[in-house]
Amino acid sequence: MKKPSLTILGCHSSIPTNKFHPTAQILEMKGFSFLIDCGEGTQVQLKKAKIKFNKIMHIFISHLHGDHFFGLIGLLSTFHLLGREKSISIYAPKGLKEIIDVHFKWSYTKLKYGIDYIELSSKKLERIMKNEKIEVFSIPLKHRIYTNGFLFREKPNNKRKLNMEEIQKIPDIKIVDYQNLKLGKDFKTHDGIIIPNWKLTFDPPKILSYAFCSDTSFYLPIIEHIKYVDLLYHESTFLKKEENRAINTGHSTANQAAYIAKKAKVKKLLLGHYSNRFPNLKEFEKEAKKIFLNVEASEPLKTYYLE
Amino acid sequence: MKKPSLTILGCHSSIPTNKFHPTAQILEMKGFSFLIDCGEGTQVQLKKAKIKFNKIMHIFISHLHGDHFFGLIGLLSTFHLLGREKSISIYAPKGLKEIIDVHFKWSYTKLKYGIDYIELSSKKLERIMKNEKIEVFSIPLKHRIYTNGFLFREKPNNKRKLNMEEIQKIPDIKIVDYQNLKLGKDFKTHDGIIIPNWKLTFDPPKILSYAFCSDTSFYLPIIEHIKYVDLLYHESTFLKKEENRAINTGHSTANQAAYIAKKAKVKKLLLGHYSNRFPNLKEFEKEAKKIFLNVEASEPLKTYYLE
Repeated sequence: MKKPSLTILGCHSSIPTNKFHPTAQILEMKGFSFLIDCGEGTQVQLKKAKIKFNKIMHIFISHLHGDHFFGLIGLLSTFHLLGREKSISIYAPKGLKEIIDVHFKWSYTKLKYGIDYIELSSKKLERIMKNEKIEVFSIPLKHRIYTNGFLFREKPNNKRKLNMEEIQKIPDIKIVDYQNLKLGKDFKTHDGIIIPNWKLTFDPPKILSYAFCSDTSFYLPIIEHIKYVDLLYHESTFLKKEENRAINTGHSTANQAAYIAKKAKVKKLLLGHYSNRFPNLKEFEKEAKKIFLNVEASEPLKTYYLE
Repeated sequence: MKKPSLTILGCHSSIPTNKFHPTAQILEMKGFSFLIDCGEGTQVQLKKAKIKFNKIMHIFISHLHGDHFFGLIGLLSTFHLLGREKSISIYAPKGLKEIIDVHFKWSYTKLKYGIDYIELSSKKLERIMKNEKIEVFSIPLKHRIYTNGFLFREKPNNKRKLNMEEIQKIPDIKIVDYQNLKLGKDFKTHDGIIIPNWKLTFDPPKILSYAFCSDTSFYLPIIEHIKYVDLLYHESTFLKKEENRAINTGHSTANQAAYIAKKAKVKKLLLGHYSNRFPNLKEFEKEAKKIFLNVEASEPLKTYYLE
């Protein structure tokens, strides 16, 4: 199984340009491709990143400001034009369904695939999706309109992994014994020798998790929801010198994003949602590094691995 | 005054890619900048073409298929973010206002500028805009949903232009005489000599006109509306070998576009709205040239002059 990865499609705020793509990213985890936000031009960015459209079964929209979803109607239309039949789930605040429906109404389009809208309205952490491998939670953020972050966690699997090399050395161990070994039990041979479990198995794989927090003011309640995540994307629309502007617009600075990452003891921080007024992304990184060392300023079409 | 020009922002159909931009173009005529259609990514193309956003006062939307207007909501939002105060007029079929309104409702946006919607519903040629310099007409096209082309014509100005070099040689001619000269009258000096008007004036400037016809089936009634235009953009989604596909989808072939151009005796034909299945645009040009010589396959970010 591939390591989970996050591919940035766009990491700028508000006005798209040839270089500045609005928010969109793909999380690939346990064989799933989750699209998170979908600013204008996302379908072109997906193509550049060589993401297969047909693998996208779940789309998460944080809020209904244009730089986070104006590319969605185009993507959904393209799915239709390409003959998609597999239905898709869209997790978004109230309003998105009305917006999408009115487009298809006026183009007289009868979609060939279904859209399952999961309307988000919780003001607390809430599990919004689960399957056998992954759980997704909405994280309440603080912005000018109702906005969620998202927490993606692999499902706990506490079973130990078999160490086949060692197991094959002991002819007494049969396939029927494997289940007990996975559960951590020691093995007793026919002549009464106890072989400790740790000699026959490996520790279960670590559960990996990713948290997406954009757009948000500097908001301490986020911390408890994202504790110890392996990767945190936290918006940093501004630098510290524009902190007042951040407060007035419901955004954060790089300095504040780093503070949240440090307090939540996350493994790695990615910055993004940059204001176009700062062309040098390294400035964001430099500012955050003073508080939290393992930080990168995310860049479009770059992939970051969870490990 | 600059010569009227048409700048192509996008000339492909349906699915946008990094190279294939959906329909959008800017007609610059008599100091006005008219935006015609607005597929996804148009605001980025406008920036690349160095078109000043603030000069756009009129937007014409042919029909409500996504590749002709999915970039509009992003552009209108950007106008707002840039602090635009000048109102804008949008000429479009019924439905567009509802689509735009629902976006701004859910983002709780109160626009700083006004939008004046002119809802198009005529099934005949109809004048939809006029000012002191230009008239615009909707041209009924034949497509899967209600669709208009647009005809842009400079206003007739039959007044002759003064030939100041000649006029200054004749001291008898005073400023009060200029009006009569512009109207084509001869001049009589104080000693009774008649100076013919053509010696003192130039012919009035030619009236230039541009017709945009996309999307449409091969539709002969277009011809009478676009007779003698200086530039015709007529869609050619397909080549002749895919004529059946053109019929089934409500589009035209390059061959058919050329036939329309020839019958309408236009000065120059531009092809566009190409299907992505034909990567070599010269094939369209080659096919059309067999019927109509002065033809070009339009290309993004290229400017074509009316003369």
